[in-house]
Amino acid sequence: MTKPPLFNRVALIGIGLIGASLSHAMRRAGLVNEIAISTRSQETLDRAEELNLGNFYSTDAGEAVKDADCVILCVPVGASEAVTKKIAPHLKAGAIITDVGSVKCSVIDQIKPHLPEAVHFVPGHPIAGTEYSGPDAGFATLFENRWSILTPLEDTDQEATQAIKALWKGCGSNVSIMAPKHHDLVLAITSHLPHLIAYNIVGTAADLEDDTKSEVIKFSASGFRDFTRIAASDPAMWRDVFLHNREAVLEMLNRFTTDLAELTRYVDEGDGQALFDLFTRTRSIRKGIIDAGQEIDAPDFGRLS
Amino acid sequence: MTKPPLFNRVALIGIGLIGASLSHAMRRAGLVNEIAISTRSQETLDRAEELNLGNFYSTDAGEAVKDADCVILCVPVGASEAVTKKIAPHLKAGAIITDVGSVKCSVIDQIKPHLPEAVHFVPGHPIAGTEYSGPDAGFATLFENRWSILTPLEDTDQEATQAIKALWKGCGSNVSIMAPKHHDLVLAITSHLPHLIAYNIVGTAADLEDDTKSEVIKFSASGFRDFTRIAASDPAMWRDVFLHNREAVLEMLNRFTTDLAELTRYVDEGDGQALFDLFTRTRSIRKGIIDAGQEIDAPDFGRLS
Repeated sequence: MTKPPLFNRVALIGIGLIGASLSHAMRRAGLVNEIAISTRSQETLDRAEELNLGNFYSTDAGEAVKDADCVILCVPVGASEAVTKKIAPHLKAGAIITDVGSVKCSVIDQIKPHLPEAVHFVPGHPIAGTEYSGPDAGFATLFENRWSILTPLEDTDQEATQAIKALWKGCGSNVSIMAPKHHDLVLAITSHLPHLIAYNIVGTAADLEDDTKSEVIKFSASGFRDFTRIAASDPAMWRDVFLHNREAVLEMLNRFTTDLAELTRYVDEGDGQALFDLFTRTRSIRKGIIDAGQEIDAPDFGRLS
Repeated sequence: MTKPPLFNRVALIGIGLIGASLSHAMRRAGLVNEIAISTRSQETLDRAEELNLGNFYSTDAGEAVKDADCVILCVPVGASEAVTKKIAPHLKAGAIITDVGSVKCSVIDQIKPHLPEAVHFVPGHPIAGTEYSGPDAGFATLFENRWSILTPLEDTDQEATQAIKALWKGCGSNVSIMAPKHHDLVLAITSHLPHLIAYNIVGTAADLEDDTKSEVIKFSASGFRDFTRIAASDPAMWRDVFLHNREAVLEMLNRFTTDLAELTRYVDEGDGQALFDLFTRTRSIRKGIIDAGQEIDAPDFGRLS
């Protein structure tokens, strides 16, 4: 006996890496009968249709959400308010609206005031992605063995939260529930700061004279190339993350620069013992991540190049 | 007709990741008849023997280099002078001595004054490695499609340089020749700064309260885990790199922190256009690295986890 689908019709607003991966994953698991897709760009929408990611396509988000039991916003976090304003008058009573944004407090502030009473809002964030973007980048296994965080509000209907939890579990993800503010702080250190630092170091290298820059590329296997992966992530998405999680990012940046000043002093003063102690301490963190099943233990990420 | 080996007897002084990989790679390519191995630790030496990495084993480096046509120092750069003093009286006339150190100026200063006249010195550095260390971490393909840099001195015998070049090419590596000082500057940005930054950010996370730290591990797939790989590298090796390439590292650190202060200002002031422009610029650098064959283009390093 197969289980009935969770939702009859899901609307994906935005069809980049995450939206497209959700389409693949939801269909593979039989979580949905129909998928409606909307995105502002006709070209991207056409591509989504060529890839057969949905059953209904429109550049009008309002059209796409009509009759949807579940609406998933898969747009850069800065677009949340504008999209919500557009779809709010067309949402079905009882529909669940959720999102995949990397920042939660700002997204809640942008979405909540514009929603009709009869709609359930369950803010969410799958901790998954690659450095590629657009509908072609999506794949069904993106969320497998990853975590999805839900940050329901005090007045969020518990059944709605359970339904979105079941959606992510159906896509292969684990689910964790936390407060929006705590989410934004944890992600500031695990995700936003690492991206900012990677963008910064790759930017420093990009500013070098052309001769040296070509050598940086040639000899990048010595460490640098690792940073270029996350610094190749979607610029619009990440601009919005830093604009909308400003406070937590600045706090983590402050800790990082304070620590870096101390580390610089070790190098300047030739304090070998302090360097050795730090480099030993950091080693165990990776072991913890591998033990938690969030990283492979193959040398060099198992890269074969 | 098979080519005769490049060397009759090679001595590997130090048998960690690089020394062990050299043993595998030289043998696979038939570059050498015999390998003598020396390391200070009896335990590591025994392990090297269990792994059958050589033909002769001694904790006495002087013993190991007797009759060797080629001596390769595979020790942390800070040990270069002490090791050279130990082996110098035992070096065969006409022998070539080379090294694999990540810093070249300091290593040359440590080694050169102690070498007998009749010995040829070709400083070298293979741009290859993983986050694992010790003799078990070695494998034959580590140097394939990577670059090895040689920094011969003005008075280095050209035939000796050609022989070491042939050794690395035989191990599957490309070879680039440059001045020691230039090497140290290029590696400061491509390797030493990235490692220092990775150690720093992982250190910042390691200092968080235990609750938050466990969440950092749980949600590390959002970016953080990438940094933990190079921050899991050998502590003694990296301590020595920072002690011995102090000036170039401090220069690159200075550029990095200046850039980071500007980027922090963008975040603080909410300058979305400046953020977007930087994030777009950094994207192309990765493309250059992939096009140069120094990185795979599979999403997320092709990790399957």
